[in-house]
Amino acid sequence: MKKLINDVETVLAESLDGFAAAHADIVLLGAERQFVRRRNTKPGKVALISGGGSGHEPLHAGFVGHGMLDAACPGQVFTSPTPDQMLAAAQSVEGGAGVLFIVKNYSGDMMNFQMAAEMLDRENATVIVNDDVAVENSTYTTGRRGVAGTLVVEKIVGAAAERGDGLAALKALGDSVNKSTASMGVALTSCTVPAAGKPTFQIGIDEMELGVGIHGEPGRKRVKLTSADDIAAELTGAILRDLSLKSGQEVILLVNGFGGTPLLELYLMVHAARRVLHGAGVRVARHLTGPYVTSLEMAGCSITVSAVDSASLALWDAPVHTAALRWAM
Amino acid sequence: MKKLINDVETVLAESLDGFAAAHADIVLLGAERQFVRRRNTKPGKVALISGGGSGHEPLHAGFVGHGMLDAACPGQVFTSPTPDQMLAAAQSVEGGAGVLFIVKNYSGDMMNFQMAAEMLDRENATVIVNDDVAVENSTYTTGRRGVAGTLVVEKIVGAAAERGDGLAALKALGDSVNKSTASMGVALTSCTVPAAGKPTFQIGIDEMELGVGIHGEPGRKRVKLTSADDIAAELTGAILRDLSLKSGQEVILLVNGFGGTPLLELYLMVHAARRVLHGAGVRVARHLTGPYVTSLEMAGCSITVSAVDSASLALWDAPVHTAALRWAM
Repeated sequence: MKKLINDVETVLAESLDGFAAAHADIVLLGAERQFVRRRNTKPGKVALISGGGSGHEPLHAGFVGHGMLDAACPGQVFTSPTPDQMLAAAQSVEGGAGVLFIVKNYSGDMMNFQMAAEMLDRENATVIVNDDVAVENSTYTTGRRGVAGTLVVEKIVGAAAERGDGLAALKALGDSVNKSTASMGVALTSCTVPAAGKPTFQIGIDEMELGVGIHGEPGRKRVKLTSADDIAAELTGAILRDLSLKSGQEVILLVNGFGGTPLLELYLMVHAARRVLHGAGVRVARHLTGPYVTSLEMAGCSITVSAVDSASLALWDAPVHTAALRWAM
Repeated sequence: MKKLINDVETVLAESLDGFAAAHADIVLLGAERQFVRRRNTKPGKVALISGGGSGHEPLHAGFVGHGMLDAACPGQVFTSPTPDQMLAAAQSVEGGAGVLFIVKNYSGDMMNFQMAAEMLDRENATVIVNDDVAVENSTYTTGRRGVAGTLVVEKIVGAAAERGDGLAALKALGDSVNKSTASMGVALTSCTVPAAGKPTFQIGIDEMELGVGIHGEPGRKRVKLTSADDIAAELTGAILRDLSLKSGQEVILLVNGFGGTPLLELYLMVHAARRVLHGAGVRVARHLTGPYVTSLEMAGCSITVSAVDSASLALWDAPVHTAALRWAM
C-alpha cells in the first residue's frame, strides 16, 4: 500500500484537521471530530445534514457551506458514521425549522441515520438517495445504491433550504430530484482502504468493472476494457433507459472521477457522453466535471444525468460557497 | 495501459472538445484547437497567455477566464505547444495593451514561446516560472523547473491585469511572485503517457521519488516510502531553505495532487505541512488543496509556498471565474 499517511489509525483525524484548517472561513469541526458544520448557520432555516463513510472526498464535508449542507458526519473510511455523530450534528446546527437528513442508500447508513432521526427531539425528515442504476441490491445495499447523484440532490435541496423553504417542501423536492437522477460507473482499477492495506478487489490488466459501486462493490459485469465511446454508450444508455426522458428534456451532466482518472480523460468522457445524449434528443443544460464523489484512488468514472426544469435549474445555479463547489456569491 | 480513451491520436482533441462544451459560458476553442481563449475579452487590458504540454489539467486551460488567463495553448501530452499556437492565441485576444506570456521553464516551451514573442508585432513580455527547488537542470530543463507555483503566478498577475495594470507592471509583478514562490513534489507511482503506452518510469513497491518533476522526471533521490510527516518535513524544509522567510511571514500554502492521490491524503498533508510552517514561525494566510497541476494519474503531491504581502494577498483574493478556480464574483 502506497499512501501519504502516518498511521492507518489516525488517517481520518489528521485529514479532518487539515480540512478544517484549510477551510476555517467556511467550516468548524465539532468536538471529537464528530461532524463538520457551517461556521455560520442561519436561524429559521431547515438544517441539511448528510454523512457517510470517508474515502469519497470531497463528498460530504466538501459540500458544507452556504447554499448546500449545514453539517456532514464523516465515518471511518467506507464505514457508516454513528447515530451519535448525526445527533450531535443536528443539535449543533438545528435552527428552529427542523432537520432534513440526506442519506445514501447503504444498509449501515440507513440504520444509523434512522436511529438518529428517532432519537432527535426536533422535527425531521429523510431523503434517501439511490441513483445508481447498475444493480438492485449489492454488497452493502438493499435496493439501489446512492452514488454521485447525491451531489445533485444536496446542491438543489441546499439552495431551496437557503431561500427558506420548509421541511415538507424540501423533503418532497429531494425525493423528486432523486427520482429524476440516475448514475452508473466503471472502474479500471481497485482502491485500497488504508486499514485493509490491500486492494479491495482484483482486476485483470485488460479488464473493467461495469456498474461498479463507490466502495469497489461489484457491478453488472466484468468485461474487457473497451473504448471511451463504448463505455459512454453503455453507461449513458443504461441511465437513459432508467429515466425514460422525452426528447427535448434538459439535464445536468455530471462526469465524476473516482479519484485516479485524470481530467484529460474525464473531459474526453464528457465529449463521448454528450454525443449519446444528443442522439437521444436530450439537451445538456449544465455540466460538472471532476473528482467529486470518489473511491479513494480508484481509476474510472461515473456518469450522472439529472433531468431538470426551470425551477430546479435555477436552484442548481443559485450561489454556493463550500470547500469543493463555489460559484456566484 | 488502462485509460478512458478511444485512440491515442485523438485523446487531446476529444478532451478539448469536451472541455470547451462543458465550459462554453467561459471559453471558446480556437480554430484547429490551437488555443482555448476567454469568450469575452476586455479591450485595453493586457492579454495574459500561457500554455504547455497537456496532461497537467486543469493547468492551463482550466485557468482561462475572468481574473486569470486570456488564453492557453495546449500542446500534445507532455509536449510543448508550437509558436504558431501562441501567435494565433495572441492575435485572438490582444486588446491593445500588449501581451504577457507566462512560461514554465522547460527548454521546449522556452524556445517556442520566445519564437512566438519575436514573431508577434505587438508589445509583449514574458514571465518565466521556475519554482521547483528540487533540482538545478533536469531532463527537459536548464535551470529550475516550473511547476505548481505557476498557478499562483497566473492568479495574482491575472487579478492585476483584470484591474488594468500595464505590461511593465505585470511583468515586474510576475517576476516578483515567481521569486517569492517555491515548490517541491514527491511521486509514489509513475504516470503513463497515452502515446507511449507504458509507465514513464519504474519505481519499487516500497519506494518514492523525492523532488519528482511534473513529467515524472527524476528528482533529488529515490528512497524508501516514509511517513507523511517525514515527507512534509523534507518538502517544506527544502522550500523554507530556498525562500529564507522571516518569522511572521504570511504565505499561501498550495498542497497539489498529481492526479492519483485522494483528497483524504492531500488534506492530511495540509495538516503535516502546516505544522512544519508553524514551527518556522510562518503563518498560512490562505490555502488551496487539490489536483491543480497534475501529471496525468501519477500518485503523489507537491507542496508550494508563496510569500505574500497585503497587496499580493488582495490579488489572490480578487474574483476569479474559470473552469477550475472560481470565487467571489
